Amino acid sequence: MPDFPSADLPNTDLIGQPGSRKLLDTPVLLLDLDVFESNLHKLADFAAGRSHALRPHTKTHKSVEIARRQIAAGAVGVCCTTLGEAEVMVGAGVGNVLITSPLVAQRKIQRLLAINAQADDLLVVADQSQNVRDLAAAAQAAGQVLKVLVAIDLGIHRMGVANPESAVELARLIRETEGVEYQGVHAYAGQLQHIIEYDERRAAALATNAELRVVCDALDAADHSPRIVTGSGTGTFEFDASLDVFNELQCGSYLFMDSDYNAVAASPEERLRFETSLFVQTTIVSANHPGLATIDAGYKCFFPRGPKPAIAAGAPLDTEYEFRGDEHGHLLYADAAYRATVGDQVLCVTSHCDPTVNLFDHYHCVRGDTLVEIWPVDARGRCV
Amino acid sequence: MPDFPSADLPNTDLIGQPGSRKLLDTPVLLLDLDVFESNLHKLADFAAGRSHALRPHTKTHKSVEIARRQIAAGAVGVCCTTLGEAEVMVGAGVGNVLITSPLVAQRKIQRLLAINAQADDLLVVADQSQNVRDLAAAAQAAGQVLKVLVAIDLGIHRMGVANPESAVELARLIRETEGVEYQGVHAYAGQLQHIIEYDERRAAALATNAELRVVCDALDAADHSPRIVTGSGTGTFEFDASLDVFNELQCGSYLFMDSDYNAVAASPEERLRFETSLFVQTTIVSANHPGLATIDAGYKCFFPRGPKPAIAAGAPLDTEYEFRGDEHGHLLYADAAYRATVGDQVLCVTSHCDPTVNLFDHYHCVRGDTLVEIWPVDARGRCV
Repeated sequence: MPDFPSADLPNTDLIGQPGSRKLLDTPVLLLDLDVFESNLHKLADFAAGRSHALRPHTKTHKSVEIARRQIAAGAVGVCCTTLGEAEVMVGAGVGNVLITSPLVAQRKIQRLLAINAQADDLLVVADQSQNVRDLAAAAQAAGQVLKVLVAIDLGIHRMGVANPESAVELARLIRETEGVEYQGVHAYAGQLQHIIEYDERRAAALATNAELRVVCDALDAADHSPRIVTGSGTGTFEFDASLDVFNELQCGSYLFMDSDYNAVAASPEERLRFETSLFVQTTIVSANHPGLATIDAGYKCFFPRGPKPAIAAGAPLDTEYEFRGDEHGHLLYADAAYRATVGDQVLCVTSHCDPTVNLFDHYHCVRGDTLVEIWPVDARGRCV
Repeated sequence: MPDFPSADLPNTDLIGQPGSRKLLDTPVLLLDLDVFESNLHKLADFAAGRSHALRPHTKTHKSVEIARRQIAAGAVGVCCTTLGEAEVMVGAGVGNVLITSPLVAQRKIQRLLAINAQADDLLVVADQSQNVRDLAAAAQAAGQVLKVLVAIDLGIHRMGVANPESAVELARLIRETEGVEYQGVHAYAGQLQHIIEYDERRAAALATNAELRVVCDALDAADHSPRIVTGSGTGTFEFDASLDVFNELQCGSYLFMDSDYNAVAASPEERLRFETSLFVQTTIVSANHPGLATIDAGYKCFFPRGPKPAIAAGAPLDTEYEFRGDEHGHLLYADAAYRATVGDQVLCVTSHCDPTVNLFDHYHCVRGDTLVEIWPVDARGRCV
């Protein structure tokens, strides 16, 4: 583990102390390693069983340590959303990074070439011809080659070419242009991942795969068959892997399972039920009114959209959380006469894990009741 | 300015280059220094004119550089919400820090004593007797004295004693206990700061001041007159300063003026109209559909509660922003046939500035069209 100044890591002295989980100076991002490892291997085994490549998205965890563990468990590489995240991963020696957002500005392309020079098999996406030409010209000038996937829009309109003809056209441009190398397609149907009902989500995934199939068929027909067809997420990987379209899965949230994803129904057989491994541990700092307590975690610890933070331990499970500013939240006890104890710790399940992780500098990793490691959130804040 | 690794600061080479504001690698937190300085001095002059002490809240900016400028402009010191923020400020030599949240855990109290030993006039708050005893015992054991304010609850129930009798009791306990030193009271009426209508907000502030007056009268009568009566915010300071209750103002957001505070009506005479100095600068990264473009800023760049990000430049001002995931947002142009240009930069006004600043590592400071400095958000993420 790297060295940190002590004020930055006030809990280091607790590492290895039995019972330290409940002594942590809070608020901290807590990772239950046993659950985390179970989730990690469940998906790795599933992908291996289906002969699907796994390229987990690091936007969820932003951690070099976790990326390395995913690769050790069988992933072919990782995804990053931003160039800044990719710089962190490549800089730490993580190989086979796919950057899933188009990089369009000249300054970004120069930074991209700097990490491409030291990276093993870096992949980028493009969704328009000018960007391909810009990438190619810069790569040629630097004496490099950039490996490019055509981004396909599966209905979010966030990025990607809008139809099969444009996909073929862009693939042809990439293949005809020096400095860039065509690798296949990237497509992410984010709008499907959180459909609660299993059958409804399955039907939507099948329809989207069929749409992508049309694109791939057009590419095949034009002799631009994609080597890589990458996408999918924690909500749809099971369906995406059952068809003959994607050959690579990008799931990220399966490691942590926030309340957003916990609400999404697993398969009726629950073959692949992931459990919650990620929490925010907090402390009651004020309790001068019955039925009410204040904890030290507000907007700067919990992403404030989606389900509110839920109680996992330290208060009755029907206690409600209410945001009470940037650094504080209220616990509203069902028993209006309840007298909370200042200093007690309360463990919370978060909503959307990605932007929650991004609020913290470190993971506090526990096994049972013991803090065993502290991992940096290496790419936290690397939005640029 | 401190040295940083270059991947962490991709825009440093632009410092001092005319026109560099529009070349910035995005998304970045942008600070317009001319507007910022005007806001800074407007409030400093106001407080000086009223003989009120100004102790601005650093939870808004989390920046040592900005804290120093506030003190240079006349502030008596600064406020911090968390111990982690205070460690950063005290560690950088910023004096007269008030920590506005109760620190109740033993481990936090030990960290507190570590910075109290090197701090100039550190102040803490307490709202219950056990905490006062814990602070005192730890301070005595360390051969130190902790300066304590009694926290008063002005209706949020977030912290503070619930009535004048409890205030008197706690003040007496502090005065009778070795290791702690009574300094006065801290009270913050956060619920009033965003009342839109000027007269309604004024009436609410007067009522709250009257409530606090009762507490102070009770303290006077018991011979525990507070030396410091500190509180207030950007929404109510004008009223709070016009009465004889508070003698110290804690405003923070006046420096930046987010859309939340821009919606709060200034005085009818507009004597103290602050302007927006803080923005998020973004780039259009995809635009394959008419009337629609994708920018590189989503939940990880914009705090997602309150008004949506508003356009300040780079797109028609009636263009609507819509969140489209962690790292992306849509621009919905009023003209449905509009064809956006990939690579164009778009400047956005943020909603609540505090949690927005907390998402970034740096301020990109501009004068006119030129990037002139990059300041770290030193206490970003220091929630513990």
